[in-house]
Amino acid sequence: MKRTFVLGLDLGGTKIAAGVVSRSGMLVSAVRMPTPARGVKRDLQALFDSANTPLAAARVRWKGIRAVGVGVPGAFDTRTETVWAPNLRGWKKVPLRRLLERAFRRPVFVEGDRNVQALAEAWLSGGNRRPPRNLVFLTLGTGIGAGIIAEGRMISGSRGTAGAAGWLAVSEHWRPEFGRTGSLEALAAGPGIARTAARLARGKKSGALARMARAEGSLTAEAVVRAARAGDRLACKTLEAAGESLGRGVASIVALLNPELVVIGGGLAEAGELLIGPLRRAALKWGQPLASRQVRIVRTRLGENNGLLGAARYAMLEIDDHDNRGRG
Amino acid sequence: MKRTFVLGLDLGGTKIAAGVVSRSGMLVSAVRMPTPARGVKRDLQALFDSANTPLAAARVRWKGIRAVGVGVPGAFDTRTETVWAPNLRGWKKVPLRRLLERAFRRPVFVEGDRNVQALAEAWLSGGNRRPPRNLVFLTLGTGIGAGIIAEGRMISGSRGTAGAAGWLAVSEHWRPEFGRTGSLEALAAGPGIARTAARLARGKKSGALARMARAEGSLTAEAVVRAARAGDRLACKTLEAAGESLGRGVASIVALLNPELVVIGGGLAEAGELLIGPLRRAALKWGQPLASRQVRIVRTRLGENNGLLGAARYAMLEIDDHDNRGRG
Repeated sequence: MKRTFVLGLDLGGTKIAAGVVSRSGMLVSAVRMPTPARGVKRDLQALFDSANTPLAAARVRWKGIRAVGVGVPGAFDTRTETVWAPNLRGWKKVPLRRLLERAFRRPVFVEGDRNVQALAEAWLSGGNRRPPRNLVFLTLGTGIGAGIIAEGRMISGSRGTAGAAGWLAVSEHWRPEFGRTGSLEALAAGPGIARTAARLARGKKSGALARMARAEGSLTAEAVVRAARAGDRLACKTLEAAGESLGRGVASIVALLNPELVVIGGGLAEAGELLIGPLRRAALKWGQPLASRQVRIVRTRLGENNGLLGAARYAMLEIDDHDNRGRG
Repeated sequence: MKRTFVLGLDLGGTKIAAGVVSRSGMLVSAVRMPTPARGVKRDLQALFDSANTPLAAARVRWKGIRAVGVGVPGAFDTRTETVWAPNLRGWKKVPLRRLLERAFRRPVFVEGDRNVQALAEAWLSGGNRRPPRNLVFLTLGTGIGAGIIAEGRMISGSRGTAGAAGWLAVSEHWRPEFGRTGSLEALAAGPGIARTAARLARGKKSGALARMARAEGSLTAEAVVRAARAGDRLACKTLEAAGESLGRGVASIVALLNPELVVIGGGLAEAGELLIGPLRRAALKWGQPLASRQVRIVRTRLGENNGLLGAARYAMLEIDDHDNRGRG
């Protein structure tokens, strides 16, 4: 039987997604389950178990799986071949590739989740159009990060930390919180949006933000997005401020990389134009004129499976690369 | 006769450099001459003429030249294959590659000067060490720009404007001058340094900066660097401010690309540690912790020939790439 399929695994902080993917990008079957998040051993067992359900559902036997691609919520250090995932308990210098190759008995390729998501966007988001050779996927949520495709190739950097877009230095006034997350992330990721909203609500008696600010723990970025959608003025102003900071970040990305496409994903992308509108305007205002006029800045249209699709794509590209080198 | 040499041409705003380069990176012979800068036709003639002197000096016949690489002071639009060099009279959408291939009757490869300089650094600056696969060359002078090598490849972007580091958005307070050059360039390139110095000198009666400020036109970035070297306090403070802005730019570059090496070149690199010291400290303060601790930030050690060496290197890589594809 010809090994025509690739298994894509997406290890997230709260869930694991696994799917059987064809070479043309069709997701034959998929499953999602909670991440145990109680240490490396249990997470590994769950990752391994997650593979069997989609295989059975697709009636594909292990023999039909050419390789396995894995996206991880952190960086894959290409030099030591280990994973460092700060938000997953115990995931420090885990030799994931070696461990999974032993378990799956076929080639395994590991890469950071942002990077494989960028691969999925480059592969599938354009429909029948020529895939973009220069694309940046920007994920906005509790944290901020980017996956970079430049000249048709994924960029992971010398130690796998490329795309740390939360650390784009978009401010000149140092604040202590910048030291933990970078200035862009401190200003414009979820917690930063909640902080800005709290500041704007201070002293206000009425309005959605003021009500939230009075109820302990309810002033979250998600709540701000909901209030903005309902037309709350201060909530809209909060998202505009975040969008302006993000726009300076995107301007910096576009100046350096001159991508044809910037795709916005992550939980905060749900805010849609309330956030992406100000982002786009700021990117144009601050950006290199030619590059920022040419770039398209859009919200992702791939769903929650983009992680596993990208992981599968990564494995396919690595296999092809290896086969071509063997032939050369 | 085997075509073992490559001709490297470096078209600058004020000078043209041409040299015969061996595959191992040896500069066999070189010449430099003024750029006519009186229109495209005369510049082209000068470029063509510049090639003959180093060939004659090296006793290499045209038959021995495999290809020609050209670095240009602007962007090479990879889609239209035309050059746009804003500081050279008439250089808008010039089909340089086609014109030179007709003249030289061999393969010609054109690329932006910052990009080929980055190639030269990756090729030659490490001595016998393994060449860095992720390197950024940052040129600081009247303008600011970068050449990017990521995963071993030069990044030019979708339309050739990648590396426009002057447009890194490192400030949150908009000033009109940012719209012409980008905030990093407005704050930290030559004219920005002169502006900062003038502001600091205002109202001061004594000191080098105050004296310069009184003499029309003498308060240049070069003069500030000289004064700082002589120990003038305000001149040092000026360079520190520029270095802090540049450090935020480098922090952004390092966050996005995770290079192992950042090489600083251009006229302002002459300021040495007076500028690069504050730059390094700010890059570490603002940067992603892992990536900014690992990166080395050094001044270029290649001399004035790095442009033509990089252009030659670019031609070699393109030729090899072409040959490998032909074989595959």
